[in-house]
Amino acid sequence: MNTNPDTVDSLLFDVFGTVVDWRSGVIRDGEALAEQHDLDVDWAAFADAWREAYVPSLLRVIRGEEPWRNLDALHRDSLDDLLVEFGVDDLPEPDVAHFNRVWHRLDPWPDSIPGLLRLRREYLVGTLSNGHVRLLTNMAKRAGLPWDVILSAELSGHYKTEPAVYETAVDLLDVDADRVVMVACHERDLDAAAEVGMRTAYVHRPAEWGPDAAEEAEKPDAGAYDFVCEDVLDLAERLGA
Amino acid sequence: MNTNPDTVDSLLFDVFGTVVDWRSGVIRDGEALAEQHDLDVDWAAFADAWREAYVPSLLRVIRGEEPWRNLDALHRDSLDDLLVEFGVDDLPEPDVAHFNRVWHRLDPWPDSIPGLLRLRREYLVGTLSNGHVRLLTNMAKRAGLPWDVILSAELSGHYKTEPAVYETAVDLLDVDADRVVMVACHERDLDAAAEVGMRTAYVHRPAEWGPDAAEEAEKPDAGAYDFVCEDVLDLAERLGA
Repeated sequence: MNTNPDTVDSLLFDVFGTVVDWRSGVIRDGEALAEQHDLDVDWAAFADAWREAYVPSLLRVIRGEEPWRNLDALHRDSLDDLLVEFGVDDLPEPDVAHFNRVWHRLDPWPDSIPGLLRLRREYLVGTLSNGHVRLLTNMAKRAGLPWDVILSAELSGHYKTEPAVYETAVDLLDVDADRVVMVACHERDLDAAAEVGMRTAYVHRPAEWGPDAAEEAEKPDAGAYDFVCEDVLDLAERLGA
Repeated sequence: MNTNPDTVDSLLFDVFGTVVDWRSGVIRDGEALAEQHDLDVDWAAFADAWREAYVPSLLRVIRGEEPWRNLDALHRDSLDDLLVEFGVDDLPEPDVAHFNRVWHRLDPWPDSIPGLLRLRREYLVGTLSNGHVRLLTNMAKRAGLPWDVILSAELSGHYKTEPAVYETAVDLLDVDADRVVMVACHERDLDAAAEVGMRTAYVHRPAEWGPDAAEEAEKPDAGAYDFVCEDVLDLAERLGA
């Protein structure tokens, strides 16, 4: 446990779930698509299924069964399958391609931007996401996310939670790993960051999987990570920013 | 020649000379160092000599005579030599290390930020510099440079003007090369970008090497690049931003 803010140089944020609300964004754009094409789909179920399909896609890349491809490509594979599964067919290709890029157009949780603005007064703040550089750049530009730097798993040619992702990011920040805090709402991400010597901040996002899941969401114990926070503003508070 | 703004997606800027005035910054911090340690140095000559030492350093890396190291390391090698040459010795190590990082603390030309703010309303704007990611991030944070994304030669493990630098950047932007404009005040940078299929914008910086050199500085012919501009605001104007 190292909660000393004086030796923190940078904070790197996981993005999907931690900074932005992917589920509401997918539902929003799904409903717009349904309106346009007169579809009847449970978009909340669709969003959850799409996100769930992400882990096996990543694992195939991590296990070397597939070459590294960016998230647009992995999302598109699972989107094509899910459209069939949910009984949606004959959508025009430009509309499918546009919907596939909804992951570039997600909105932040209400505390994300105010928290980042406070943190960036004192520290360097960046991303460290499985989203590729272009996706993260488009997202930041659209949503006004005030990153100092956009780092991505893409820069290592690997995906989280492979150590190379974290090592490449720390290398680019040109500081010792223990001066960089990995911020995420997913314990496996923080555990992997801790393995390479980074500090860790857990941010609680009980509504990541929707209001029903929120009731069951549990926070890790206070001692599990260097910081266990309610949200990004709480993290800013703990770091004196 | 392709001057159509409608097919431009992104602009990538060379930084030293094109966006920031390295010469004035080195003189400013040199004078502060002289004040502190009672030194008598021609800091304009020092700045020019330091910048001139940069090209042979890069060439040694490009020719494979030295492994890739970041600009802080290359600058430090030449700084140590130049301090001896200019008769400065016995400076405390923290002061030398701080001075070496003056390249992180350079100020933009007066038109740079207003021009970038206009361009980023319409396009994605980023860096493509031989400066490493951390240097460019520190510089942007200090000077308020409004980059959407910070790309660097570092991400390719090469230095400009090697094609891999431009190819890696275009790949990360995830668009065709001819939708990306390389912006620089150095013709060799633009020529190399054009070789990989990028579009090119020359920005005239006659004072890069100081007021005396400015009188002799010549602009290329209007047809030499897609855009031949007076400054970044002029570029914004040409691109309808």
